[in-house]
Amino acid sequence: MIRVAVDAMGGDNAPGEIVKGAVDAVSRRKDIQVLLVGQEDAVGQELSKYQYPKEQIRVVPASEVIETEEPPVNAIRRKKDSSIVVAMNLVKKGEADAFVSAGNSGAVMVGGQLIVGRLKGVERPPFGALIPTEKGVSLLLDSGANVDARPSHLVQFARMGSIYMEHVIGISRPRVGIVNIGAEEEKGNALVKETFPLLKECKDINFTGSIEAREIPHGGADVIVCEAFTGNVILKLYEGTGATLISMVKKGMMSTLRSKIGALLVKPALKETLKAFDASQYGGAPLLGLKGLVVKTHGSAKATEVSNSIIQCVTFKEQQINDKIKECLEAEEQVTENK
Amino acid sequence: MIRVAVDAMGGDNAPGEIVKGAVDAVSRRKDIQVLLVGQEDAVGQELSKYQYPKEQIRVVPASEVIETEEPPVNAIRRKKDSSIVVAMNLVKKGEADAFVSAGNSGAVMVGGQLIVGRLKGVERPPFGALIPTEKGVSLLLDSGANVDARPSHLVQFARMGSIYMEHVIGISRPRVGIVNIGAEEEKGNALVKETFPLLKECKDINFTGSIEAREIPHGGADVIVCEAFTGNVILKLYEGTGATLISMVKKGMMSTLRSKIGALLVKPALKETLKAFDASQYGGAPLLGLKGLVVKTHGSAKATEVSNSIIQCVTFKEQQINDKIKECLEAEEQVTENK
Repeated sequence: MIRVAVDAMGGDNAPGEIVKGAVDAVSRRKDIQVLLVGQEDAVGQELSKYQYPKEQIRVVPASEVIETEEPPVNAIRRKKDSSIVVAMNLVKKGEADAFVSAGNSGAVMVGGQLIVGRLKGVERPPFGALIPTEKGVSLLLDSGANVDARPSHLVQFARMGSIYMEHVIGISRPRVGIVNIGAEEEKGNALVKETFPLLKECKDINFTGSIEAREIPHGGADVIVCEAFTGNVILKLYEGTGATLISMVKKGMMSTLRSKIGALLVKPALKETLKAFDASQYGGAPLLGLKGLVVKTHGSAKATEVSNSIIQCVTFKEQQINDKIKECLEAEEQVTENK
Repeated sequence: MIRVAVDAMGGDNAPGEIVKGAVDAVSRRKDIQVLLVGQEDAVGQELSKYQYPKEQIRVVPASEVIETEEPPVNAIRRKKDSSIVVAMNLVKKGEADAFVSAGNSGAVMVGGQLIVGRLKGVERPPFGALIPTEKGVSLLLDSGANVDARPSHLVQFARMGSIYMEHVIGISRPRVGIVNIGAEEEKGNALVKETFPLLKECKDINFTGSIEAREIPHGGADVIVCEAFTGNVILKLYEGTGATLISMVKKGMMSTLRSKIGALLVKPALKETLKAFDASQYGGAPLLGLKGLVVKTHGSAKATEVSNSIIQCVTFKEQQINDKIKECLEAEEQVTENK
């Protein structure tokens, strides 16, 4: 049984869609228990709308809510009874295996570091976002946790990301690319130029060199490494461009009588093809390198994404990703010490 | 008459598509003379395929070619008889008003600075790329000229970009946004946090604050300011995601008999809608802040884009953008001196 604490109060659609997602997750999987953390009345009221196996969902009271735009460090320090802080403490005390939140990203990141804590050797835990590509899915990291990273951080991102893609997603020897503005080693900004040779030396990853942003949608690398400012820009632009184009296609199809008839005919096939490009089916972005599993889903997440994010925790836990990250970083430390 | 020097040897489709684009431009506009710079035989052979007003196209011989992946500084210094160097010298000597190239971006940037030269007061000339949005078109700069910029450079980008959007594209009081990973002033990396207050103080631009990448396709700002690494990532990802999604839509429509019939019906309407999202109709990216006009088009540019890039030079020249940039920066210098 995997116990997943879920932030019932976080995100644009809380608590309604969050509770719905939790119910959906336990209906799909017998091996998950959800701890819904939040204001008892509000959560209870939503829960009462559904039929579900009672032993698989438990409400854990938390009276406060951290708002989306609150400065994270203050919020985590002051709101001790917020859903995020209460849930993180459950993970810390071993009463939950994982935590899923659609709330304030900064607070999730800060809470993850201050409450759950970093694994030994991890310098900066990155958000690893799964993004859809023509060929399946790639892991983009850091997709927004720590801006202005140093080369050694990026090397850790590459190694943690490789472990994630190999064991959670099941891609053997995942190709690691560093985001760059040209294919050659001498291209790039100071950070990329310094990081590139370090990644080349890394024996435990399959580094394939630079990846230009235009290759990302084609699935040019399985693990896409970059600094968090760039990563967040990529993630948001990816989602924004996708959503805009799909809405333009729909609008185009509805613009004439002729095209409306055509739209009815193409709809099923098109829906199937574009499903591959729907980020919500891949769940949330784990904060890699913590002592417990912390997953951030979109602020706009609806029930399906929440449910997928909860289920995603099972593989992460079963594959003992944290133990693997720890081993990998300790092995590296050993090598460095022996040098 | 505007005289535009065109790099007949630059880009993936040179000289064929470049020459075709030049012929197209002079067929559409009587007020343009194109100087096709490149290897006489190759260019002449392509030209002989078309009918066109002879007085509007002249071939200027240049025996060398700078390849796409050549290190730019060396290439500009050594290949004195390359199409890029010869054409840039035409601009420098006043024998051409503008230069359009689909060739090596780095060489165009270096040549622009070393041969054509910067306007007085300009610290770093940025590439300003026009990108399609739901609402029309936005100017993204720096889209790839100088990585690791400083705050003062970004402020100049904002001011030069505003002049361009107001006078070339015709948007009055263009909204200027700085690319950021959150809407609030305190968000961002060190560069953005330093630049934000400087932009707020800028009296001659309409600064509207941060723009998150997901707002770019919605047309969230007219002038989008960022450092060149980020800008190039945005530009390439924007194009890559657009191309991938459109190809997936096409594939989806061709997947069943039913959808194929539907595709025939929706095609005209869809084509019309998606035309707005086709970058090639907007021409190339000018290198702003030089003593002459230098425009870089995509390496993959075909005749239509080349032709549009040539025609784009007319408005730039007619509106005396360089004079306006010079005045604007000199006014600022005056203010600084008086402080």
